[in-house]
Amino acid sequence: MNIGILTSGGDCPGLNAVIRGAVRKGVRSEHMTFSGIRDGWRGLLEDDIAPLTTHDVRGISGRGGTILGTSRTHPYSQGGPEQMKRVIAARGIDAIIAIGGEGTLAGAARLVRDDGLPVVGVPKTIDNDLDNTDYTFGFDTAAEIATEAIDRLRTTAESHHRCMVVEVMGRNVGWIALHSGMAGGAHAILIPEFPVDYEQIYAWVRSAHDRGRAPLVVVSEGFMPAGADEQVADKGRDRDGRIRLGGIGNHLAPMIEDATGIETRSTLLGHLQRGGQPTAYDRVLATRLGMAAVDLAANGSWGQMASLSGTDIVSVSMESAVDKLKLVPQQRWDEVQVLLG
Amino acid sequence: MNIGILTSGGDCPGLNAVIRGAVRKGVRSEHMTFSGIRDGWRGLLEDDIAPLTTHDVRGISGRGGTILGTSRTHPYSQGGPEQMKRVIAARGIDAIIAIGGEGTLAGAARLVRDDGLPVVGVPKTIDNDLDNTDYTFGFDTAAEIATEAIDRLRTTAESHHRCMVVEVMGRNVGWIALHSGMAGGAHAILIPEFPVDYEQIYAWVRSAHDRGRAPLVVVSEGFMPAGADEQVADKGRDRDGRIRLGGIGNHLAPMIEDATGIETRSTLLGHLQRGGQPTAYDRVLATRLGMAAVDLAANGSWGQMASLSGTDIVSVSMESAVDKLKLVPQQRWDEVQVLLG
Amino acid sequence: MNIGILTSGGDCPGLNAVIRGAVRKGVRSEHMTFSGIRDGWRGLLEDDIAPLTTHDVRGISGRGGTILGTSRTHPYSQGGPEQMKRVIAARGIDAIIAIGGEGTLAGAARLVRDDGLPVVGVPKTIDNDLDNTDYTFGFDTAAEIATEAIDRLRTTAESHHRCMVVEVMGRNVGWIALHSGMAGGAHAILIPEFPVDYEQIYAWVRSAHDRGRAPLVVVSEGFMPAGADEQVADKGRDRDGRIRLGGIGNHLAPMIEDATGIETRSTLLGHLQRGGQPTAYDRVLATRLGMAAVDLAANGSWGQMASLSGTDIVSVSMESAVDKLKLVPQQRWDEVQVLLG
Amino acid sequence: MNIGILTSGGDCPGLNAVIRGAVRKGVRSEHMTFSGIRDGWRGLLEDDIAPLTTHDVRGISGRGGTILGTSRTHPYSQGGPEQMKRVIAARGIDAIIAIGGEGTLAGAARLVRDDGLPVVGVPKTIDNDLDNTDYTFGFDTAAEIATEAIDRLRTTAESHHRCMVVEVMGRNVGWIALHSGMAGGAHAILIPEFPVDYEQIYAWVRSAHDRGRAPLVVVSEGFMPAGADEQVADKGRDRDGRIRLGGIGNHLAPMIEDATGIETRSTLLGHLQRGGQPTAYDRVLATRLGMAAVDLAANGSWGQMASLSGTDIVSVSMESAVDKLKLVPQQRWDEVQVLLG
Repeated sequence: MNIGILTSGGDCPGLNAVIRGAVRKGVRSEHMTFSGIRDGWRGLLEDDIAPLTTHDVRGISGRGGTILGTSRTHPYSQGGPEQMKRVIAARGIDAIIAIGGEGTLAGAARLVRDDGLPVVGVPKTIDNDLDNTDYTFGFDTAAEIATEAIDRLRTTAESHHRCMVVEVMGRNVGWIALHSGMAGGAHAILIPEFPVDYEQIYAWVRSAHDRGRAPLVVVSEGFMPAGADEQVADKGRDRDGRIRLGGIGNHLAPMIEDATGIETRSTLLGHLQRGGQPTAYDRVLATRLGMAAVDLAANGSWGQMASLSGTDIVSVSMESAVDKLKLVPQQRWDEVQVLLG
Repeated sequence: MNIGILTSGGDCPGLNAVIRGAVRKGVRSEHMTFSGIRDGWRGLLEDDIAPLTTHDVRGISGRGGTILGTSRTHPYSQGGPEQMKRVIAARGIDAIIAIGGEGTLAGAARLVRDDGLPVVGVPKTIDNDLDNTDYTFGFDTAAEIATEAIDRLRTTAESHHRCMVVEVMGRNVGWIALHSGMAGGAHAILIPEFPVDYEQIYAWVRSAHDRGRAPLVVVSEGFMPAGADEQVADKGRDRDGRIRLGGIGNHLAPMIEDATGIETRSTLLGHLQRGGQPTAYDRVLATRLGMAAVDLAANGSWGQMASLSGTDIVSVSMESAVDKLKLVPQQRWDEVQVLLG
Repeated sequence: MNIGILTSGGDCPGLNAVIRGAVRKGVRSEHMTFSGIRDGWRGLLEDDIAPLTTHDVRGISGRGGTILGTSRTHPYSQGGPEQMKRVIAARGIDAIIAIGGEGTLAGAARLVRDDGLPVVGVPKTIDNDLDNTDYTFGFDTAAEIATEAIDRLRTTAESHHRCMVVEVMGRNVGWIALHSGMAGGAHAILIPEFPVDYEQIYAWVRSAHDRGRAPLVVVSEGFMPAGADEQVADKGRDRDGRIRLGGIGNHLAPMIEDATGIETRSTLLGHLQRGGQPTAYDRVLATRLGMAAVDLAANGSWGQMASLSGTDIVSVSMESAVDKLKLVPQQRWDEVQVLLG
Repeated sequence: MNIGILTSGGDCPGLNAVIRGAVRKGVRSEHMTFSGIRDGWRGLLEDDIAPLTTHDVRGISGRGGTILGTSRTHPYSQGGPEQMKRVIAARGIDAIIAIGGEGTLAGAARLVRDDGLPVVGVPKTIDNDLDNTDYTFGFDTAAEIATEAIDRLRTTAESHHRCMVVEVMGRNVGWIALHSGMAGGAHAILIPEFPVDYEQIYAWVRSAHDRGRAPLVVVSEGFMPAGADEQVADKGRDRDGRIRLGGIGNHLAPMIEDATGIETRSTLLGHLQRGGQPTAYDRVLATRLGMAAVDLAANGSWGQMASLSGTDIVSVSMESAVDKLKLVPQQRWDEVQVLLG
């Protein structure tokens, strides 16, 4: 059995561990061979594919990025499934492991359902916004990097008696902000799921300041204050829908300074959160998912993906993972309230 | 309501985050007051107790160790429960949150069951050996530190074409070795639950070496090779039952060198694994457990402890957590086989 | 002898190690007592001063920030030297150790020269722009943090075949960019001392891209391309003269993308570079400088500061350190050329 | 001009940065070609040599170890200089850059002086024991790793009210112990150059304990207490003359515990200190040394090596670097005294 592997969408710490886990498992216990598809769907559409051996994957589980490259090419562009079928047939590829986030998995599910392509999935996102999986690899690393940054910024804030605003990633969900904010001891955590208004933010900042602390505000890139001007909300989104340059953190900092009289600085962590070595947690999770994906392929479980449930790796349908965003639930938001302010 | 908190047994990254989470939650939403009990059961038996305020716990969630101190004093020594009752009554303490591992929780469960003391628990162990909880805080940090060490040792091993043996903690279970070995790309992972023999170890080392790799062996301190001389097994345990000095890593290294002819070095990570800043994962888990323990106390759920189940914090009985060790299961052992050798 | 200590200007990893080194040395070998002056010159002008004991400084050498707080209050504001003299006399302070950068040391030198105040100095700046000292503490930490960030960004850049622009601190000099760029393997290093034009930048980016690399551009915040529009140069400086928001990195990224056709992203490291734990190098240097400053005070060497020369700590005049900026010299610029492109 | 490069002796963070710096410089500005000699002198004696291109060295400056491999093969074994001359002639090698420590540089100096081989050097040692150079790359990384370890061990020691002994590398000199001990806030620093007796060690430990601290002892592997039994001194040296297993830290810990009554634990950092990613400081220094070595080769400066003097890279004779060990001088020992106890 020959398995094609591709990584698609934004890169994510742990991708290489998935690839290694799959290749090691497939070669050693299933006598499979592997084909590395370059840059996600682009490589499949353009037949940019090369053999992938155990030698190619040695020592890579701790390396950031993806040795296969990635892109945002859409699977239904450039000839789409018909073109893919030609490439797959010519290459003798029997199954495809697609490692990606919401868009990739939705595309893969459709390729299976509508076009009968033999695809299984591995969920990937630093944002942790995929449903039907407890966590996705990449999230732990992103939360760890954000926490380390918050630790650093705290000392400079305290020395200068400043308020510090830290903008973290997360797209439309607040998981990275919630976890790094809890871990870093933030006085305000601002997430898209629960859009508090400006006055609440100022109140948290003032409360921390009144107790002699340097107020620390962690804000998810997708957060928008309740009652914010629409102009604020629309300004400066980049091609991924993320707020560019200005950013919500840079929007909030001067407003906090004006409202509270406390000198305020903003830091936008940006791409730091998705690069570099994955944590041990993410390496283990990614390796296990890669190995499980090979089982799915061996069993012909097209349309299924490997998923974390508690401490187990289970099989769920890709469609169930992308059906809706996994939001921070009310209970987690209630839980964190006593830590704020 | 006045809550006494104590930390008992070996220290563990995240203890301070539990303490902070409990105090913040209790003071802010339950109008509780807190008493810090010094050095575990010792402080309770000797009335070494001081008020613990939100001021005392500010900024501590990222700090290693425990601000309350810890000891291995047994709860049934020095007057035991009767003495504790006198201290509790004199101090006006209404409930005790005991943060500890197997021994602490077993003692706490008995204090509730046999002596009617108002105790709730928070599970703590870097070894991840407690049952009825998915993970315990401290484990993620220990596995991360071990993985970083393995990453470092790999480069020196490769430069010298050596085999490197790394001994990690874990007491009688292999979780730290399993996770850090998977994350670090080990060629042999040796854990107490599955005692392979010397020949299997040599075979893994030779296999990696034959492929041009520097063989990397991760061994859990509690591992003993199948067929090992009893003298080896008994030698040099310290007061905690851990192998001292010599250690299993130092035992294996010369044997591997002699059997395979490959120069072999051993490193014993030791206390590095339990000190220093907790990872973001552990800080979040520990904070949530501390907050949940306050709910248990508020509800009078004596004998219960806060526990991780999937992504939820739930309540389970302390007895269920210590009833038996949580071993690495057969399925996880089978899963990792394709990565070895 | 009673010594007042103050930290002034932007905070810097290592400040606490200076304070600890001075107090330990003064108390133990010179029988001095110490007074902690809050928030730089502000505390001296407003008599915000408290005793500083060896107990206060224990365990702080590895902590970021400054336990004394800092501010940008000017020494010749609020009553200036006459007011200081009153405070010093009332407090019984015999000497002041002023820890600060260019502005602080220039102010301190003038207080000695014009007003006869008993001040000695310790040079501090992450920018490494002080003359007559080989390095200043804080610089090594800043360069290390920037390098770690570049390492992270490289993997994401490579996975996406992108160009990555990283803006680092440094004010009007390029030391942080030079060192982190060399350490991180940058393909373009842009520093204020050597303002190359846009075409040169594009050429370096194209050259790296043509060899299959993800082009990595490290730019110092004070860099301005030769031939840049004056509007670009003036836009968006903050109160410290640093480029705010937009920043030079954010200016360059779209221009590079447009000129080369290579997708380009920008990251502004910002305050991350000056917070958190100092490196071992900075802790040792800072500790030694703190101890040497006590010797200067004991000897009445007013107007002198402790300085690093090779591996020795020597005494130089504060005026000599601030007389001119320490620029990256031509020879260091020539040296790095073969690494670019 | 064709340049052979070799790395010899114990591995050291920064070796790859030297190799990259040399190759980039030589290829780009001197039109040289390079030959990678495997495993130090072994590769030269056995003609185990391959072309080394700029492609081979891309992205390696941050990687630990050495891509060329290393060994302890002596240059005067296996046919020695005559054999080397045959290999060099056959390969068309015009110069050799030997990167190594005391033994390697002494051998290289002799090959130049006695046998007329065209060799220049780059000094390398984590121990910082080479004379006539301010620092050697690898030392900063080793001191940083040791300091991070000490930071971790401190928290566990404080929680348990224990004394912690940390044994660091350094061979016959105390530089790593001195710097990591200063940076980590050690209460006792024990180095070979100044062999204090057991009573002094106990006094430092008691003094720290009496002030409520967890005593922290940093001991260099080459330290031996004044008045120590000769049996202690001789026991358990490994092939490199380093104390194996037992180690001086493991020797001291029970003695401290017995003498002071304070529970004491020992940690031996071992090979962790020489592996993994080099610090930014070491990468910059190593890169500059590699580039300077190419200049030496281009100029035919046989017998010379690149060396750090202040902030400059200069040329000194290899013989001057190995003539005597660079010991920790009396003045640095006096300086650190106020920090101990």
